[in-house]
Amino acid sequence: MSEAVGFVGLGHMGLPMAHNLLRAGYRLRVYNRTPAKAAALAEQGAELVGRPADVAAPGGIVITMVANDQALEAVTLGADGFGEQLGPGGVHLSMSTVSPAIAQRLAAHYQARGAAYVAAPVFGRPDAAAARKLWVCTSGPQAAKERVRPVLDALGQGIFDFGAAPEAAHVVKVAGNFLIVSAMEAMAEAFTLAEKHGIERGQIASMLAQTIFACPIYQNYGKMIAEETYAPAGFRLALGAKDLNLVLDAASTARVPMPFASLLHDRMLSALAKGRADMDWTAVGLAVSEDAGLK
Amino acid sequence: MSEAVGFVGLGHMGLPMAHNLLRAGYRLRVYNRTPAKAAALAEQGAELVGRPADVAAPGGIVITMVANDQALEAVTLGADGFGEQLGPGGVHLSMSTVSPAIAQRLAAHYQARGAAYVAAPVFGRPDAAAARKLWVCTSGPQAAKERVRPVLDALGQGIFDFGAAPEAAHVVKVAGNFLIVSAMEAMAEAFTLAEKHGIERGQIASMLAQTIFACPIYQNYGKMIAEETYAPAGFRLALGAKDLNLVLDAASTARVPMPFASLLHDRMLSALAKGRADMDWTAVGLAVSEDAGLK
Repeated sequence: MSEAVGFVGLGHMGLPMAHNLLRAGYRLRVYNRTPAKAAALAEQGAELVGRPADVAAPGGIVITMVANDQALEAVTLGADGFGEQLGPGGVHLSMSTVSPAIAQRLAAHYQARGAAYVAAPVFGRPDAAAARKLWVCTSGPQAAKERVRPVLDALGQGIFDFGAAPEAAHVVKVAGNFLIVSAMEAMAEAFTLAEKHGIERGQIASMLAQTIFACPIYQNYGKMIAEETYAPAGFRLALGAKDLNLVLDAASTARVPMPFASLLHDRMLSALAKGRADMDWTAVGLAVSEDAGLK
Repeated sequence: MSEAVGFVGLGHMGLPMAHNLLRAGYRLRVYNRTPAKAAALAEQGAELVGRPADVAAPGGIVITMVANDQALEAVTLGADGFGEQLGPGGVHLSMSTVSPAIAQRLAAHYQARGAAYVAAPVFGRPDAAAARKLWVCTSGPQAAKERVRPVLDALGQGIFDFGAAPEAAHVVKVAGNFLIVSAMEAMAEAFTLAEKHGIERGQIASMLAQTIFACPIYQNYGKMIAEETYAPAGFRLALGAKDLNLVLDAASTARVPMPFASLLHDRMLSALAKGRADMDWTAVGLAVSEDAGLK
């Protein structure tokens, strides 16, 4: 019988991931701020608990998949958090997109208590999570990473390790999300240039997606940006805006001027100002069309 | 026996393309500003001529693969150009990366003389040209496009058509090159962010190239930018700077603000100012490292 695993955060990503752990034979103790979302999991045998602290067993594993730094801090170091319950030998498997800074804080907190922080943020949308097709980037203490390996194998199609530093995998994740938004902006500019020269957006998008940019980001987001289907959200623009904040914070800490990231941060701010928080993050492309007098 | 084809411009791209036409059985009349470069072709049966005008036969096909608008204008409308020699039924197959504006001018010139302008710019570097792996984008009059189709089939692995407008395929080509340079800048920023957080550039580049960005642009240029091998040039930065000019000209004509393109144009100007014209165009990434205090 597989061991019990704690799981905090049953959002668009967390819920299918938790399902896959149940299917892989893990016993799950789950917590979600909105308990209703956990009902389907409970029917399949997961134990629902009332506080984040209750998901942790001394020496056990707890996975977090929450929206941002604030939520992660609340469920770990907050009054009802599991930060004191994990205990010696415990592993916090932190899979959300959060800041390098909070990773370092939590890693120090656990180290003082004999527990470990393993960063394991993922690339992939909810459909990839459901299909066990996530790409996982890890960093943290070697022994702890080896222990959680079977858990990660039940969630993704590949694991890339970035060493011992608690923040390393999170830096890679925010850098990756920055690359995705950069590709979106660049495609929106290119497609709008084509459009105003009388070329169909879908036609240039399709050519590029079959040739020099034949990869998921350009294929999937390229289609959305070509067709301007900016809602419903697969990934909310508000979360994309958060990710750009994380990029600029990490850039600021390390003193790396990132002019594309600065420009994209402004795009996100403007989109939020225009009430687009709940649109898909590809909606940064809408501003390009507007600037060109098309909307 | 296949018909005779004129070929102007035996640079890094033109030379392997001309070789492939000879191999496919075409008789070639070639012109190059530097005759020495054509010697190997002559050994294989190509006829070398002394002026661009001499490559054209009335009603025939002439291919151009030259560096820029100025060179294209010289070999067509210049004193020794073939613009008057092509004659009724002739086709100018224009495969260089040039401006939409010169395409419109040449198309009007030929139309008045019963000839046709077919835009057919390509994606792919010299090794792709040699291996007949180019991607070709076409636009122009339908009958002329059908006539040159076997010639294009001898040069590339796929043809994408963008309608009748003479400039359309050139707009697509400059938009594509803009997307490539955008990807380079974004990768340079992301890799430098990672590097200054203690992560190896090659490690993040490799992960991305195997996962969400598993396509030629991110794989090939990503490796160069990760390893900072900015010379020797596969594609000279001076030519990349020209392409950014073409992008901004096309954007200006169509009134499409392209903030990424504007930023990249400045990057190219700065690289030229620092004497990097003969480095590879990936050397835009060098400025990102310099800005971060790394060089």
